[in-house]
Amino acid sequence: MAASAPIKPTIYLGSFVHSTSLSELELADKGAIGVDETGVIAFVERAVENVEDVKAKNEGFTEANVVEVKDGFFFPGFIDTHTHASQHPNTGLFGQTTLLDWLQTYTFPMESSLSELSKAQTVYSNFVSRTLSHGTTTAAYYATIHVPTTNLLADICLSRGQRALVGRVCMNTDLSPEYYRDVSEEQALSDSRASIDYIRSIDPKGEIVQPIITPRFAPSCTSTCLSHLGALAKETGAHIQTHIAENKPEVVLVASLFPTSKSYTDVYDTAGLLTPKTILAHAVHLSGPEISTIKARGAKISHCPASNTAITSGCCPVRELLDEGLTIGLGTDVSGGFSPSILEECRQAIWVSRFRAMSSAENSKLSTEEVLYLATRGGAAVVGLEDRVGGFEVGKEWDAQMIVLNPVPEGGAPEGKFEGGVDVFGFETLEERVQKWVYSGDDRNTVAVWVRGRLVHRTGKYLA
Amino acid sequence: MAASAPIKPTIYLGSFVHSTSLSELELADKGAIGVDETGVIAFVERAVENVEDVKAKNEGFTEANVVEVKDGFFFPGFIDTHTHASQHPNTGLFGQTTLLDWLQTYTFPMESSLSELSKAQTVYSNFVSRTLSHGTTTAAYYATIHVPTTNLLADICLSRGQRALVGRVCMNTDLSPEYYRDVSEEQALSDSRASIDYIRSIDPKGEIVQPIITPRFAPSCTSTCLSHLGALAKETGAHIQTHIAENKPEVVLVASLFPTSKSYTDVYDTAGLLTPKTILAHAVHLSGPEISTIKARGAKISHCPASNTAITSGCCPVRELLDEGLTIGLGTDVSGGFSPSILEECRQAIWVSRFRAMSSAENSKLSTEEVLYLATRGGAAVVGLEDRVGGFEVGKEWDAQMIVLNPVPEGGAPEGKFEGGVDVFGFETLEERVQKWVYSGDDRNTVAVWVRGRLVHRTGKYLA
Repeated sequence: MAASAPIKPTIYLGSFVHSTSLSELELADKGAIGVDETGVIAFVERAVENVEDVKAKNEGFTEANVVEVKDGFFFPGFIDTHTHASQHPNTGLFGQTTLLDWLQTYTFPMESSLSELSKAQTVYSNFVSRTLSHGTTTAAYYATIHVPTTNLLADICLSRGQRALVGRVCMNTDLSPEYYRDVSEEQALSDSRASIDYIRSIDPKGEIVQPIITPRFAPSCTSTCLSHLGALAKETGAHIQTHIAENKPEVVLVASLFPTSKSYTDVYDTAGLLTPKTILAHAVHLSGPEISTIKARGAKISHCPASNTAITSGCCPVRELLDEGLTIGLGTDVSGGFSPSILEECRQAIWVSRFRAMSSAENSKLSTEEVLYLATRGGAAVVGLEDRVGGFEVGKEWDAQMIVLNPVPEGGAPEGKFEGGVDVFGFETLEERVQKWVYSGDDRNTVAVWVRGRLVHRTGKYLA
Repeated sequence: MAASAPIKPTIYLGSFVHSTSLSELELADKGAIGVDETGVIAFVERAVENVEDVKAKNEGFTEANVVEVKDGFFFPGFIDTHTHASQHPNTGLFGQTTLLDWLQTYTFPMESSLSELSKAQTVYSNFVSRTLSHGTTTAAYYATIHVPTTNLLADICLSRGQRALVGRVCMNTDLSPEYYRDVSEEQALSDSRASIDYIRSIDPKGEIVQPIITPRFAPSCTSTCLSHLGALAKETGAHIQTHIAENKPEVVLVASLFPTSKSYTDVYDTAGLLTPKTILAHAVHLSGPEISTIKARGAKISHCPASNTAITSGCCPVRELLDEGLTIGLGTDVSGGFSPSILEECRQAIWVSRFRAMSSAENSKLSTEEVLYLATRGGAAVVGLEDRVGGFEVGKEWDAQMIVLNPVPEGGAPEGKFEGGVDVFGFETLEERVQKWVYSGDDRNTVAVWVRGRLVHRTGKYLA
């Protein structure tokens, strides 16, 4: 279905779970949410006994579709604030490497191969299917340096109906191999502009896909290149994404490459790349003054715990960054991260916070409620969509996933017949069901996904 | 099929992967393994071009079944060296608790409810299905204090054909609530003996199920109770399992409860509970002298990283324990651990080792090869089955799983049609396929499981 085509008004019925603050989840049984023909939430009702009453009292909904969740709940779609669609084929391949050798060994060869349209079609189409299947309704994607295949990724997101920020990667220094880099500062700029123009041509209002200016990270770009991109961001009003302070050798490298800058953060700030529309991935090793600068500029943070752990980058001090008032979402960072799932990232954020609690920072433990906030409302704020998605209020758009947790039958499940990792025995409160989903759920529990009211993913047996 | 009934000789054909040492995996394409009518590996061949030649040259295999793996490989069954079948319904429920309050809040109420046979039937049957579906061919299980339902767990393991050490839990101090503890030292001993006798009666040779003496952990037992159990172990030759040094407040508690003991380890040693057949779960906070004592007694370690992280117990120094020469396997420790999967535990062991590398102990990183060794040969040695399972040599029994990784079709996977978390694009070596399986695989990739040559689990579409 075209992402803007009108839909039939629909009433969603059953249990609803969403964040109301960083530390609080609202858990509602017997709810009803009405979504109008534009995909916007028209009403939210509680304590519903009879859907016919709901239809009767809400104008425009007398003939509405009804979609009821049984053995589960509706949850806002996940926001993946940082991932590399182009590294999808390398998922799980990192071995014992850390950032700088990982880039040379795994990443640059794979990305460079995505100049080929047919390969890019397979990789990007598969990755969008994967992320949708995990309930990701919005993603901030790195593509590659290639304009045609970056544009292809935007086409795929638009046609599949997944909200996306799609970025052509800029990288013009010899940190990148000769076979895979921008040949000049002029080309870096003109190719970035070309991709912005294309993405805006296919979705002029940016309702589903938007361009995002993407300097890979400071060591990949000359000062001039970074400044050109800062000016381009100002001129076009586009979003910006990059990496910052992911691992220690990288921080040392940046200091040596930009000797006149006060810090890693200052490199971006000087270039005009720190704005309220900037997503900074990682932020593991920032100094206090850097955090203050980021906050003052209104730039946002993408926390990517799976990646940070897998390639041993460090433990991001999320509790402290939250206490400083920064805006934070979660990112899968495939393929530094080993999973396209934001649910897995919720768990990884919890593990990282627990490791910090066990080693030094006792108060750093994140709760289940907090990571679910980062995965939805936090992420929405990071990508600039906090007024449109992330929760279930009237006026928000219906970006949601239907979560189903299978009940254990009397006598135990028949051999080998499990649909997802969660076992529900019947004693669990809705809150406990959410906990079980977070700690043992997977894509099998996400049986249907909507963006702006349009069904963008379903598993075979649901909503067929 | 009865666990000892003769089977038809079978030739397994395709790729085989197993550990040959802590740091090395053997990866063989085009192999063939012949399993005789008793479930024992009769021959191992490499570079096989034609299965008919293999049949012809191996006596007794001319009419053999042939089971070929495509798009995957055979891998030894996993050994779960420590888990609580009785806590299965609480999987994923732990919130912000740590060990001692977690026991009171979640664990004791659930375990006590398993006095009821019908509930135990559902919980234990479902859990054995779950662990088999994740490729676990051998498990060391805690049940509860109840003899009848502990025996039921052994019955289920025997009838399903999963190798198991099944332990009735002993706990006679007021750390446990009045509604759930042994009423006397005499009862603790006699009930333990009753369960040992029953389990030996249903499987006299211990080919599938064996009893295991199970003092919950030192704070749950009086000195006399522990000594009785030590004497029972000596008398019966039974295995022993317990917990040790899981979290810091527990270590302090043990010191206060056993003021004349030199250490937590000394409590068990004094009681005669440290033997070559003893499994010590956790071992996160041991002193140097304790490690020496454990090594001298030949007792084994079950590393349970998911649990240690989830309930913030600490980071077990696995590298150092290995360097000291201890024997180590992996344990899921459900429901302190949040998953019944040893594959997940492999990942968690890697994360814990990386966190240690990032915070203090640079050389602690475990490799993929090392955790797979712990999950198979290491675990086999922990449960005393190293001569029978853990690898693919002539004379070993065929405890194995068939791993299938689905190839990504040209153009990307059709929406929502994923069978497991791994994407194979075609460029991957067998070694890279193993890496992808370890970091993004799940139970969907384990499509068939055998114990002693008998098929004990399969998913719908395989070997139907």
